[in-house]
Amino acid sequence: MKENSVGLTTTQYFKINASLALDNHENLEEVTIAYETYGKLNSQRNNTILICHALSGDAHAAGFHAGANKPGWWEIMVGPGKAIDTNKYFVICSNILGSCMGTTGPSSIDKQTGKPYGLRFPVITISDMVKSQKALLDHLEIPILLAVIGGSIGGMQTLEWSIRYPELVFSAVPLATTQRHSALAIAFNEVARQSIMADPNWQNGDYYQSKKPDLGLAVARMIGHITYLSDEAMRNKFGRRLQDKKDFSFNFDADFQVESYLRYQGKKFVERFDANSFLYITKAADYFDLSRQPVDSSDSLTFARARAKYLVVSFTSDWLYPTRESKAMVKAMKKNNLDVSFCEIAAPWGHDAFLLKNERLETLLGGFLSRMSQELKDAF
Amino acid sequence: MKENSVGLTTTQYFKINASLALDNHENLEEVTIAYETYGKLNSQRNNTILICHALSGDAHAAGFHAGANKPGWWEIMVGPGKAIDTNKYFVICSNILGSCMGTTGPSSIDKQTGKPYGLRFPVITISDMVKSQKALLDHLEIPILLAVIGGSIGGMQTLEWSIRYPELVFSAVPLATTQRHSALAIAFNEVARQSIMADPNWQNGDYYQSKKPDLGLAVARMIGHITYLSDEAMRNKFGRRLQDKKDFSFNFDADFQVESYLRYQGKKFVERFDANSFLYITKAADYFDLSRQPVDSSDSLTFARARAKYLVVSFTSDWLYPTRESKAMVKAMKKNNLDVSFCEIAAPWGHDAFLLKNERLETLLGGFLSRMSQELKDAF
Repeated sequence: MKENSVGLTTTQYFKINASLALDNHENLEEVTIAYETYGKLNSQRNNTILICHALSGDAHAAGFHAGANKPGWWEIMVGPGKAIDTNKYFVICSNILGSCMGTTGPSSIDKQTGKPYGLRFPVITISDMVKSQKALLDHLEIPILLAVIGGSIGGMQTLEWSIRYPELVFSAVPLATTQRHSALAIAFNEVARQSIMADPNWQNGDYYQSKKPDLGLAVARMIGHITYLSDEAMRNKFGRRLQDKKDFSFNFDADFQVESYLRYQGKKFVERFDANSFLYITKAADYFDLSRQPVDSSDSLTFARARAKYLVVSFTSDWLYPTRESKAMVKAMKKNNLDVSFCEIAAPWGHDAFLLKNERLETLLGGFLSRMSQELKDAF
Repeated sequence: MKENSVGLTTTQYFKINASLALDNHENLEEVTIAYETYGKLNSQRNNTILICHALSGDAHAAGFHAGANKPGWWEIMVGPGKAIDTNKYFVICSNILGSCMGTTGPSSIDKQTGKPYGLRFPVITISDMVKSQKALLDHLEIPILLAVIGGSIGGMQTLEWSIRYPELVFSAVPLATTQRHSALAIAFNEVARQSIMADPNWQNGDYYQSKKPDLGLAVARMIGHITYLSDEAMRNKFGRRLQDKKDFSFNFDADFQVESYLRYQGKKFVERFDANSFLYITKAADYFDLSRQPVDSSDSLTFARARAKYLVVSFTSDWLYPTRESKAMVKAMKKNNLDVSFCEIAAPWGHDAFLLKNERLETLLGGFLSRMSQELKDAF
């Protein structure tokens, strides 16, 4: 275990007392939220940072679980002396609603039937995820968030936080994300969902007592991985290099390293993730449109209620949520006279860049949080 | 039937007398080539244009089959007075080896077993496709090709023709293609293949007597369609418009038009295409590297033997075979002092642009062919 780590961490669980009013007009009962915290809440209760994770993430953002040799998913960013400095800030990360990493989702037991929800789980939205996180913050008696930070689908939650609870969000850092899921992003998600639903083991979502739709989920994940990398990243990382061979196999084995990589990613993913959760979370992302309009529309009113100070970050090679989309949200923020910093970081690794070691991002984020911390103190 | 059409056409079949020596060192016996011809071969036998089709195309490039109300796949380009003018040129289009539209492929009967080949069909290359086309040209007693023209995988065949049979190819027009399949392109093909092979109906390729792997093939085609369009094309064509609805369904139906479009394309495709052919043709594309190197290498020697005059065309929004890759081949051609014209056409429709009505492309191609026709006459 490294010295600049938060060290041993454990996931905690909070059961929401009330039922959760969802965007589809249903109420969800018995919602449990899995979460972790790092650092200490100060006496003014104004040093809390909420981290929102992406599609397949979990509450375990930093440190090490007992017996594990792999740290949390954002260890490079969260810890003592790091950009999200746990010596200064009280950091919360919770597993999103609809997931399968401790928070209630389609694989959870529906108390009404005693069986896993499957497709009886309601179709949720990014906004529903944020509402459930708000219940957790109420439970922890957090009156204000110094910052909400997240990349990709975590960035959508970050944006949603800032317009749903403007009085609670002092600053927001949406990374590698969009204010509105594009046709291309929807297309990729839909094909991935179709792959899962085409697997006969999927059985309309009721597979928890039998074989799981592993093959369909693996293909879905492979599609995802193409979108997380970029053309440039694939050229640099794989090119046309062959896998353990001097020549083509002339069969349907994986000849190229990029094929082996994708097969491995697909295979590894099915060991840890639930296919129905994949369906629900991607659908929530597809529904996401901060302007609340079912069709494309003007963005001028989107941030009318927002009060947060924003740091918006995009990455040059991210073709899932390209810089153009970050610029559009920055423009909409500025129209509402909001305090916005924007940075496009040159990085060849595609959409995944926000998860990888990047000094530019660390410096930028660390500096922004210091400034926000001071400004929040000065404000009261 | 329109006046500027070649009118009624029929597909013809030619059985190659000799066995075909393949790149995998096997010999393929009993190869039949399906082909169509339009226009008339002149007395000098120097007005032949060979059209090479893309992944799911066929020999029926122009005109109408008896009883059909839909013309061939390149009707906009091929006919009397059109860019590929059948009043002037003798046009040949043949179905590629490995396909399922009349030419021998994995769904054909293997004479040795009396059953369809399935995976016993040898893994073929773009070069093998070209060798089989050469046998057809020998049969038709064509001594020289005024031009070879093709887009996408048809463009790969076009390039291959020009370096495999340099003395036979007076000019070559590779459209929306690459001299070497990229990691990104391989990745998309591999995920599509995995989707087919994950379908339990696929049965290791032996499904011809039972249910076909329709669901897997449909997802494979949906993946393909994402690559044929572009981010820009999807935004223009679909955006976030909903399908027959005023609000979200909050279930896993197709909410967005882009979802319905992809589902429809997948469903339509399985009615006309063989899943094993999809595997074989995409593998041939992945193996394609005109430099004959299994790994990335310098391109300076690639066109050393070529003698053709080239017209290379790329499209601004093609992100499967981006302009960068066309420019790389143009550079390699120029290094060998070849006569090259290059044009990047502004078109928002992505990779599919070469199949769509485009006056710029028609003018460019028509002019190039007229010039080539004159130069070939002057050359002898």
